[in-house]
Amino acid sequence: MTTIALDAMGGDHAPRVEIEGAILAAREFGVRILLVGIEDQVRQELSRHRLDGLAIEVVSASEVITMSDAPSQAFRRKKESSVHVAARLVRDGQAEALVSAGNTGAVMTVARFVIGTLPSVDRPALAAAFPNMKEKISVILDVGANVDSKPTHIEQFAVMGEIYYRAIWGVKRPRVALLSIGEEEAKGNELTREAAALLKQLPLNFTGNVEGRDIFRGNVDVVVCDGFVGNIALKLSEGLVEHIGAMLKKAIKSSLTSKIGYALSKRAFDDFRKRTDYSETGGAPLLGIRGITIIGHGRSNPNAIKNAIRVAAELCRSRINEKIEQELSAAATVSARG
Amino acid sequence: MTTIALDAMGGDHAPRVEIEGAILAAREFGVRILLVGIEDQVRQELSRHRLDGLAIEVVSASEVITMSDAPSQAFRRKKESSVHVAARLVRDGQAEALVSAGNTGAVMTVARFVIGTLPSVDRPALAAAFPNMKEKISVILDVGANVDSKPTHIEQFAVMGEIYYRAIWGVKRPRVALLSIGEEEAKGNELTREAAALLKQLPLNFTGNVEGRDIFRGNVDVVVCDGFVGNIALKLSEGLVEHIGAMLKKAIKSSLTSKIGYALSKRAFDDFRKRTDYSETGGAPLLGIRGITIIGHGRSNPNAIKNAIRVAAELCRSRINEKIEQELSAAATVSARG
Repeated sequence: MTTIALDAMGGDHAPRVEIEGAILAAREFGVRILLVGIEDQVRQELSRHRLDGLAIEVVSASEVITMSDAPSQAFRRKKESSVHVAARLVRDGQAEALVSAGNTGAVMTVARFVIGTLPSVDRPALAAAFPNMKEKISVILDVGANVDSKPTHIEQFAVMGEIYYRAIWGVKRPRVALLSIGEEEAKGNELTREAAALLKQLPLNFTGNVEGRDIFRGNVDVVVCDGFVGNIALKLSEGLVEHIGAMLKKAIKSSLTSKIGYALSKRAFDDFRKRTDYSETGGAPLLGIRGITIIGHGRSNPNAIKNAIRVAAELCRSRINEKIEQELSAAATVSARG
Repeated sequence: MTTIALDAMGGDHAPRVEIEGAILAAREFGVRILLVGIEDQVRQELSRHRLDGLAIEVVSASEVITMSDAPSQAFRRKKESSVHVAARLVRDGQAEALVSAGNTGAVMTVARFVIGTLPSVDRPALAAAFPNMKEKISVILDVGANVDSKPTHIEQFAVMGEIYYRAIWGVKRPRVALLSIGEEEAKGNELTREAAALLKQLPLNFTGNVEGRDIFRGNVDVVVCDGFVGNIALKLSEGLVEHIGAMLKKAIKSSLTSKIGYALSKRAFDDFRKRTDYSETGGAPLLGIRGITIIGHGRSNPNAIKNAIRVAAELCRSRINEKIEQELSAAATVSARG
C-alpha cells in the first residue's frame, strides 16, 4: 500500500480541507495517509468523520509554516513544522510521497534540503498543468522560480517533464517544446538558443520552439522554460482568469435581463468553470526530489487535495524517479560523448 | 496639422481596413494622413468613399511586407515596401508618425534602422496596453523581443513608459513597477535585482517588484521587463483570452436553454467583449524612435486603426521624444555621478 505524508496544516482552510481530501482519497484510491500536523487540531477535525477502517493515521508536528513566512527562514527556523516532519517521513522511508497545499516556496526548500534531490538532477523543477483548447493538459516547467537557469537545467526539465507526462496522462511520446518568442530558433534569447541545441540531441519528441499562446492551443504536451519566465506565466494566467471571471460577473449583474439570462445559462457556466478549475488537475509535482513531492494551491478544496494524493500515488506506482535517473544518466553520457 | 504616414498594406484586411480607419481618424481628429501603399489598390479602395475635403493623400510604394516575411530579410530585401516608404517619410520630416498594422518584427526593424533611435536610447521598446480590473490601463514594456536586456535597458524602458503613460492616460505620477516573481527584491533573477537598484534612483514613482497577476489588478500603471519575458506575457494573455472565449462559446451552445439565456445576457457579453477588446487601446507604440511609431495588431479593424492614429497624434502633440531625451540625459548624469 502506497503511503502518503500529507501536510495537514498547509492550505488556507487547514486542517479541515486536508482531512476531507484525505478521507476521499483513502476511500477512492486505497492509499495509506499520514496526516502530519498539530495533533489536537487534527484529531478534533478527524472526530467529525467516520473513518470506517480507512488507513489514515496522525503524526504530530508542533509548528506551522504560514503563507507569509519567508521560505528560507521557515526552512531554518521552523524545523518542527508539519512540512519538515512530513519531509523527514519521506527521507526516512516511512512514506513515499509528500503532499502539501502550503507555502510553495517553503515546501520546495524543505523538500529539496530535507529529502534531497536525485543524484542526476541539479535543480528540482515545479511542473504546472494547464487545461488547453483540445480539452487536454499542457504541462509547463519550471514554474517554481529556478531563476537564471543554464541550458543543462532546461535539458533536465525536459527529461523530467516528459516522464511525468507519460506517467500521468498516458501519452507514449509526448510532444516537448521550448517556450520562446517565435518558432524560429534564431528568435529566442541566449538561453533558448543553447537549450534548443541540447534538446535536439535527446531521444524525446522535441518539436521545437513555441510561443506563449501555444500553451493553450494544445499542439504541445510539455513546455520547458526558465523558472523566472514560467513563474510569471503561471501567475499571469491565474491573474487573467480571475480578471475575466470578475468582469463577466459584473457584466451579468448589470441588468435584470442579464441575470435571468445567466440563470438559464447556468449549467453552461458551471461546465466552463469546471474546465478552468485547477483543482481537477491535482497539484504541481516538484520533480527531481528523492521521493514524490506534490504542491497544491493554497486555495485547494477537498477535491484538489484528493487529486493531489491521486497524482502522488500514480507517480509512486510508475516509478518515475527510477526513470528520471536512468534517462538523465543516459543523456549525460550522450552529451559527454558529443 | 499633424501628419501621419499610414502603412496602407499592413493588416490582415489591408488596404480596406486601413482606409476606413484613416477616414474615421481624419474626420474625428483633424489629422493629415499619407496613405502609403500599392497605388492602384489604395486609390480603388479610396474611390468607394466620399472624402469631403479630408486631408488624405496617397503615397506610392511598390512592395508589400507580408506577415510571413522574416523581419530582417524583409528589411534588407523589400526596400520599396510600404513600411520602408512610410518610415522614410518620417525620417525626412514629411510626416511626424508612422502607423502600421503589419508584421511587427519588420516594422520594428525598419523603424529602428530607417528612422533611427533617439540619441539617449540604446534599444527602442514596444509598449502594450492591458485593460485591468480597475477599468484602467496597465502598460507593459518591452513586449517587442529585446532579449537579454541589461539593467540600463530596463531603466530606459521605465523612463520611456512613464512618459508615454502620462501623455496618453493623463496620470501625473504613474506607478512604475518591475515584473518579477515575488515582491521581495531578493526574489528575482540577476537582471531584476540589478535593475531594481537603478530604478530606485530615478525621479519617478517606482513602487517595487510586482508579479504576473498584478498586471491585471490595476495596482500599477507601468510594468517594465526584459522583452523575452514581456513578449511571452503578451502572447500568453492573447492565447488565454482566445481560449476562454472559445470555451464559453462552446458551453453556451451546448443546450437550447443556454442559448436563450445567452440571448438575454447578450448586452452584458457585448460589454464584456468591448472591455477585453484591444482595438480600443490604440496599438502599441515603439518608444525611443526619432519619430512616433505605432504598431497595431494584424487583426485590427477600422476602429483600431483610428485609435492607433489618435495615439500617434497625441504622442506628437505631447512632444514625447523631447521629454524622453531630457529625462534620459538627466538619468545618465545621475548614474555617472552615483
